[in-house]
Amino acid sequence: MDGHGETAEQPPWYAGPQTFLRAPLVGFDAIRPGTTVISGAPHSLRSRFGERGGPRGIREGSLALAERLGNARREGFVDVSTGKRLFLPSKTRLVDVGDLNVYPSDVMRTTEGIAGGVAEVVRRGGFSVCLGGDHYVGYPSCLGYTRGLSERAPHARVGYIHIDGHLDFADTSGSYGKYNNGTNARRISELPAVVPSSMVFIGIQGPCFLEQVESLRRLGATIFTSEDVEVLGPAEVGRRAGDLAIKGCDHIYISFDIDVIDAGFFDGTGSVTMGAMTAQTLFKILEPLSRYPIGSMDFVETAPPLDPSGRSPLLATQALLKILTPRIFEVE
Amino acid sequence: MDGHGETAEQPPWYAGPQTFLRAPLVGFDAIRPGTTVISGAPHSLRSRFGERGGPRGIREGSLALAERLGNARREGFVDVSTGKRLFLPSKTRLVDVGDLNVYPSDVMRTTEGIAGGVAEVVRRGGFSVCLGGDHYVGYPSCLGYTRGLSERAPHARVGYIHIDGHLDFADTSGSYGKYNNGTNARRISELPAVVPSSMVFIGIQGPCFLEQVESLRRLGATIFTSEDVEVLGPAEVGRRAGDLAIKGCDHIYISFDIDVIDAGFFDGTGSVTMGAMTAQTLFKILEPLSRYPIGSMDFVETAPPLDPSGRSPLLATQALLKILTPRIFEVE
Amino acid sequence: MDGHGETAEQPPWYAGPQTFLRAPLVGFDAIRPGTTVISGAPHSLRSRFGERGGPRGIREGSLALAERLGNARREGFVDVSTGKRLFLPSKTRLVDVGDLNVYPSDVMRTTEGIAGGVAEVVRRGGFSVCLGGDHYVGYPSCLGYTRGLSERAPHARVGYIHIDGHLDFADTSGSYGKYNNGTNARRISELPAVVPSSMVFIGIQGPCFLEQVESLRRLGATIFTSEDVEVLGPAEVGRRAGDLAIKGCDHIYISFDIDVIDAGFFDGTGSVTMGAMTAQTLFKILEPLSRYPIGSMDFVETAPPLDPSGRSPLLATQALLKILTPRIFEVE
Amino acid sequence: MDGHGETAEQPPWYAGPQTFLRAPLVGFDAIRPGTTVISGAPHSLRSRFGERGGPRGIREGSLALAERLGNARREGFVDVSTGKRLFLPSKTRLVDVGDLNVYPSDVMRTTEGIAGGVAEVVRRGGFSVCLGGDHYVGYPSCLGYTRGLSERAPHARVGYIHIDGHLDFADTSGSYGKYNNGTNARRISELPAVVPSSMVFIGIQGPCFLEQVESLRRLGATIFTSEDVEVLGPAEVGRRAGDLAIKGCDHIYISFDIDVIDAGFFDGTGSVTMGAMTAQTLFKILEPLSRYPIGSMDFVETAPPLDPSGRSPLLATQALLKILTPRIFEVE
Amino acid sequence: MDGHGETAEQPPWYAGPQTFLRAPLVGFDAIRPGTTVISGAPHSLRSRFGERGGPRGIREGSLALAERLGNARREGFVDVSTGKRLFLPSKTRLVDVGDLNVYPSDVMRTTEGIAGGVAEVVRRGGFSVCLGGDHYVGYPSCLGYTRGLSERAPHARVGYIHIDGHLDFADTSGSYGKYNNGTNARRISELPAVVPSSMVFIGIQGPCFLEQVESLRRLGATIFTSEDVEVLGPAEVGRRAGDLAIKGCDHIYISFDIDVIDAGFFDGTGSVTMGAMTAQTLFKILEPLSRYPIGSMDFVETAPPLDPSGRSPLLATQALLKILTPRIFEVE
Amino acid sequence: MDGHGETAEQPPWYAGPQTFLRAPLVGFDAIRPGTTVISGAPHSLRSRFGERGGPRGIREGSLALAERLGNARREGFVDVSTGKRLFLPSKTRLVDVGDLNVYPSDVMRTTEGIAGGVAEVVRRGGFSVCLGGDHYVGYPSCLGYTRGLSERAPHARVGYIHIDGHLDFADTSGSYGKYNNGTNARRISELPAVVPSSMVFIGIQGPCFLEQVESLRRLGATIFTSEDVEVLGPAEVGRRAGDLAIKGCDHIYISFDIDVIDAGFFDGTGSVTMGAMTAQTLFKILEPLSRYPIGSMDFVETAPPLDPSGRSPLLATQALLKILTPRIFEVE
Repeated sequence: MDGHGETAEQPPWYAGPQTFLRAPLVGFDAIRPGTTVISGAPHSLRSRFGERGGPRGIREGSLALAERLGNARREGFVDVSTGKRLFLPSKTRLVDVGDLNVYPSDVMRTTEGIAGGVAEVVRRGGFSVCLGGDHYVGYPSCLGYTRGLSERAPHARVGYIHIDGHLDFADTSGSYGKYNNGTNARRISELPAVVPSSMVFIGIQGPCFLEQVESLRRLGATIFTSEDVEVLGPAEVGRRAGDLAIKGCDHIYISFDIDVIDAGFFDGTGSVTMGAMTAQTLFKILEPLSRYPIGSMDFVETAPPLDPSGRSPLLATQALLKILTPRIFEVE
Repeated sequence: MDGHGETAEQPPWYAGPQTFLRAPLVGFDAIRPGTTVISGAPHSLRSRFGERGGPRGIREGSLALAERLGNARREGFVDVSTGKRLFLPSKTRLVDVGDLNVYPSDVMRTTEGIAGGVAEVVRRGGFSVCLGGDHYVGYPSCLGYTRGLSERAPHARVGYIHIDGHLDFADTSGSYGKYNNGTNARRISELPAVVPSSMVFIGIQGPCFLEQVESLRRLGATIFTSEDVEVLGPAEVGRRAGDLAIKGCDHIYISFDIDVIDAGFFDGTGSVTMGAMTAQTLFKILEPLSRYPIGSMDFVETAPPLDPSGRSPLLATQALLKILTPRIFEVE
Repeated sequence: MDGHGETAEQPPWYAGPQTFLRAPLVGFDAIRPGTTVISGAPHSLRSRFGERGGPRGIREGSLALAERLGNARREGFVDVSTGKRLFLPSKTRLVDVGDLNVYPSDVMRTTEGIAGGVAEVVRRGGFSVCLGGDHYVGYPSCLGYTRGLSERAPHARVGYIHIDGHLDFADTSGSYGKYNNGTNARRISELPAVVPSSMVFIGIQGPCFLEQVESLRRLGATIFTSEDVEVLGPAEVGRRAGDLAIKGCDHIYISFDIDVIDAGFFDGTGSVTMGAMTAQTLFKILEPLSRYPIGSMDFVETAPPLDPSGRSPLLATQALLKILTPRIFEVE
Repeated sequence: MDGHGETAEQPPWYAGPQTFLRAPLVGFDAIRPGTTVISGAPHSLRSRFGERGGPRGIREGSLALAERLGNARREGFVDVSTGKRLFLPSKTRLVDVGDLNVYPSDVMRTTEGIAGGVAEVVRRGGFSVCLGGDHYVGYPSCLGYTRGLSERAPHARVGYIHIDGHLDFADTSGSYGKYNNGTNARRISELPAVVPSSMVFIGIQGPCFLEQVESLRRLGATIFTSEDVEVLGPAEVGRRAGDLAIKGCDHIYISFDIDVIDAGFFDGTGSVTMGAMTAQTLFKILEPLSRYPIGSMDFVETAPPLDPSGRSPLLATQALLKILTPRIFEVE
Repeated sequence: MDGHGETAEQPPWYAGPQTFLRAPLVGFDAIRPGTTVISGAPHSLRSRFGERGGPRGIREGSLALAERLGNARREGFVDVSTGKRLFLPSKTRLVDVGDLNVYPSDVMRTTEGIAGGVAEVVRRGGFSVCLGGDHYVGYPSCLGYTRGLSERAPHARVGYIHIDGHLDFADTSGSYGKYNNGTNARRISELPAVVPSSMVFIGIQGPCFLEQVESLRRLGATIFTSEDVEVLGPAEVGRRAGDLAIKGCDHIYISFDIDVIDAGFFDGTGSVTMGAMTAQTLFKILEPLSRYPIGSMDFVETAPPLDPSGRSPLLATQALLKILTPRIFEVE
Repeated sequence: MDGHGETAEQPPWYAGPQTFLRAPLVGFDAIRPGTTVISGAPHSLRSRFGERGGPRGIREGSLALAERLGNARREGFVDVSTGKRLFLPSKTRLVDVGDLNVYPSDVMRTTEGIAGGVAEVVRRGGFSVCLGGDHYVGYPSCLGYTRGLSERAPHARVGYIHIDGHLDFADTSGSYGKYNNGTNARRISELPAVVPSSMVFIGIQGPCFLEQVESLRRLGATIFTSEDVEVLGPAEVGRRAGDLAIKGCDHIYISFDIDVIDAGFFDGTGSVTMGAMTAQTLFKILEPLSRYPIGSMDFVETAPPLDPSGRSPLLATQALLKILTPRIFEVE
């Protein structure tokens, strides 16, 4: 509890504690089945400096939106296009467990720190949303997800959707070795619960490493390039990806790299892509996708220190909410 | 007069006084009927820090364009698509009266300061362009406009076009109260000269507060969402908005919030919207709109201190000119 | 509790929750007599933009130091000059109650929000450290202190030490009115518990308003200018100030404005002073001062958004610790 | 050679020397016919501050991509849409000769410095890529190209493609005179080897100076406006431009100003255009264009110091590679 | 006149026109004998980018101080150390004539533009304060001063005080030639009215070019190094410099380069010096110096675009006022 | 060789290749006995982001000074206080071997990469100057130095001078382990060639870890605190440190951390210290120190990305030159 406890009104965005959307900061034991659980994994090694600042920055950036949501608690929202109404439930469906254990000079210990935290969330029935950090975080997060899931459902099979400008499917990345943000999807493909033929990559852009593309084809995975999105239409890509990922699987894990959009529209990210999709297009992919049985997710590569305009974390929050909305709101 | 008086050439953009497009800095008594009159209202309370720097920043940013216009005085411009030619008239149609009175710790006194200045402009027959500041400035600016207008045309009726990503139609905004950049359109709807059924909102994006949408519907106002713009086409939305706003009215007041475009394309603004329209789309809305009988306007939410790249004020000038061009140029 | 609970090691500075020095975030009911209690008052109206970011920025900046202190918990520190040893007590003497209530468009309501929070801290026996915000915060903080104190010791008398480059003793500040960061010391002089002749101003620099100097002289207050510090020596000024402030009083309230040091050495502050003292000099004043019976304090005018180098909050933490050290460490 | 010589692995992007894409830094005598030769021309006078930082910034920005290409040396890339494969040839086709001579206070001497360097590259059979600097650099670069070419092929005729938001076809620019980034295309039209009716301008946007448009029409040049690109489609514009420029010519010189894309998507440039094309659109123009017989080129107006997010040089590298790819890769 | 004309109160610092200390913006014909006249010379060629932004930045930075001075108009200031009182006279002694003519690509034409403006100020009896720009501005400013002076007093002799970390006494600076910020003092030494043996250099720091030191010695000029200031004491250096400069002369011209202080204390300057004097020391030199018969001055090398903290122009204003105070205030 | 080869004049600071002071970029085989050899070690793990940018930033920052030195090649410098003259020898005594091998995710492999490079320099008789990176770099640099030295002089004994605000003498630093910028001096004390009782620490500031101080005392090492420097005088500390370090030793290794000066005067560094010494004081320590038989050195913790004013690398160059001057100049 903080000093704002006495007032029924929302504090201004620049006051009060910095949890995601002002969700309660709790320990693992407060997680109930179905709760959406935010955690942070401030790890980055490769790319440009800055992804370590992701979890902290996104939480702070989410407060401008939280200021608005605070009022919606009473009034509710409406989507003027569809007429659908959104209400914040009286009992919160969203909590924040803070940052998981990271060790700047020890990648494998960091891997266990993140995986252990996510596994604990999933074991208790939570929907885990792990905020990176660079895209390597996707691997320990998915590792933790499959560990936690295996305790609740030992035979559950998991499909995988990789939203990103890049494949991240190298077996090893030059001097960075086997555990970094160029190998995360490869490491995930090696997890026992993950079904390689249900791995779907959306938004891939530019020339790709030949070896990675051929390995994915051998595994039966699917790639939707930026150009495919333009040809098929984003909503159709969202639906096809969902169908392919859930096929033969019980749940989908989503690994969401914000650099899937053109870096011209997003300052604060490490791996810059030019000529990629717009936010408008991305949102049309996410809309149908958010209705599939997603089990857990990560949200990576937001690098607030690289964006002196300060917009990136506010934009990142809006992108993440496109997936979280059905989970944290009541929709009529 | 400044030290540049002796030369017939334009000073470089980083020299000379900082009025909008190098318009003469004048007192109210220099305003003639039909003159376009720039004023500043450096007020902001809510959003992110920075909109207070709007008037000063836009004036400075306009000088890069003024450097080019200075030469056009002799040569003229041509629109290569349409063949239309633009000339700067020998007698300027544009003046700048500097900043209106604001009082940082007293919102109501600031409201009177801005309204008083705008009313004086309008009373003398000027076309008032009030540069914010945050969107709250729209209310005192429109208040001043209707006051000034009532002296020249006591029974004039005013339509209202709100170009913005947000409705700003709350009756009260949490701890900010009734007078801020979430309530400005509501306050305007309460002005006697404004016709609520001629209020038109363009570019609304994301979930809206249910109470605001229902209130607007009861009043007979019209909302064109970002999605409507995509479906109907921007030029058609511009025309429909103009028709709806002028219906039963003598003049249209335009309140123009730059955050109607996606914040991914505009660093320097306070309320960040992701997935909104591009500048190209916006310009296609403004083109037909600029030909309706607009009485006065405000231009708000440019926050130069939030944009260390320095582009925002230059971009803002170009957006504003899409409306001002028929007023300050001779078009053949 | 956050995800770091499982490890005995300190998280890196960029991970984990952002309380001051990683102190527990608690409600008022956790305050015990003698506890040092950090609160935030993110309020600013006048100066340059940015002091609103003070509490959040200082908390975040303090974490680099907390990383070091975490190890000191086991090892302890030593001052190599004096041989004195510092240990962090096993039971923390420091808590953080988060931010107090502020209302951006209503100064008087903000005044009550801050004063109410501080009074509650003091009522429970806490040593209140209120982080601004601009220097106006000094008034509601001292107001709350005397209110809380009066319940525990109805007749207690309070001396006042104002560490600042400016007097802040105007009765009214132009269009800003009576409640802002130019009037805070004047408002404090009007509090019943404060003894005007025990008011001491340290570090005053540059030309001062004649009316303010004369008013202070009439009240019997003492001014140590920047030049006095040079002539008398900083340690002597610290001692004289302590003696003067405690004379006839039970406790001293300290209002500490970081702009007492030359702005050439501190980027992130609003009211810039050139030619003022260095940090080395300031620390020599604070050393003797920290041993007087200080009752509570504020620490104001750190404006992290104005300092893109990010050093200011780290420096601010070090300055504040010069006063807090005897309270939160065990000294041998 | 640098300290990395001992390792077969690529250094991380922030280590090692800063040549374009880690090409060898060589003297002119190492140039072989067909080699692509990068040089820098850090000259800027007009626009906003910053284009002088272009060559250095682009080289540094290219290293993130070089890190990836280093691995491709072994693996190769594939374009997942077309199935085409790209390999880096074992013998590099790309070298960097460093910066050419510039003299900040003497435009004509700078002109000779740049032209002399480019002429030397072309004389030796190199494909010259001169990195600006502001767009004035286009003139000395093309001047040098035609000089060098005339030694190898005395009667060769050159077509010209100007990719830019602006015409740059003034005869004189106010107080800047005849040699600056508003006159470069005019000066080029006066070169003996250049065929005025094979001059093509792509991406022109906003109102243009009447005199410039009329002069171009008299010369038989072609203008594709931003709107033409939308109506005809970008690939079609690329093809038409190539056909027009090569007609009656032996080679095409390309002058590529990055401000042809909307400044909302590109922070680091001097002359800001709003409402211009996106990077996606630009890339579709460049794809067919890159297959015409281009003789040499310049790449101007990237201003890294204006972009504190640091993305601009990384984006610029990707745009430039759209033209260079067929020259520096083996394509299967 | 601007919209603030109606109120007796000072506008906040971020509102209103941007003249130095809110002095009236006037033409040359408003200058009366004894008036202090601010002009701007936004010229820079060498150093780091940014000095071109000096005049505009200093004017804007001066407004924070102007806000305070506005109230002093009624109350007056007091120097608490000396008891001296300062009042702003009812009739302003300070005007601002805006920027003088500069031509970015033509140094000699810029020289005439600045010299012509300053000469006009001096011809009318004004005390000219020319704001740079880089230190080259010192030459045209002093040239204009001696030209204007020669009309009022044909035989007047001028002493010269150069406050700077560097001698700027090269005859030619590599590829920059003879007219730049490394040669300005040499060019001044060649003016007929200037007495070389009355040239005094204060604050010189680091190794100096041998040729420059020997030339100055031959001319009989005096150098006070940074170390001399430490040994002799700053006040003594101020007095000696004044005595030496006025000896055999009627007036002193001061050329004041802000990089005389250590760049560690001043972000926004082009030529960085480490280990130079502090602002406190500088102020002690200026205090006695300001009482000598100074005829005119320049104030150069403030580069606001290089200082993202925004302090430099506020600090620069305070440094400049150390000399201007006896001229624009009434002192009792 | 680059395109500047044809001109005898220095290029402007923003043009040409980025070696330290424009020294030739060479391979190890070009090193001759007595040559000063710059290398880079862009490694950082702990502190704030940014030290990885040190080597690149310092090289770039050194070019402003190189522009001046280029002219001195002909003219020479003079120290106006002492009359000593400095000339650049016709044959350069300074080379740059580029960056040594670093591996971002593998500290021990990085340690070998740096140590191997430095050993090679020393083996060939070079004076190695290794630019960090964070202070951990000091350990592999000194390790390499002693390795290389042992081949030339198997029984040589080495004294150690640590110029820093912090001891860096932890055995292990929390979760960072044994190899980071808190343990570097401890690791060095364990090297066989280093004489612990000849280890001297200068500039230590603030509370120190008790365990570290006691370990150093047991080893017979000496600590000069910031306060000792004030009491003894900086030149005396420089002399005493030199005497203590060379006692019983053949050479001194210097590890120079720029955070020994107050972070208020130096933006771009990771570990911020307030109240530490000024640059003026530091320079007085270095002057006598530079005359002892120094064998090699490192220069660490400059973090250019943390300093948006861009001054830090320019200042860093000046600090480093205080030690290098007797090695790269001829002094008369």
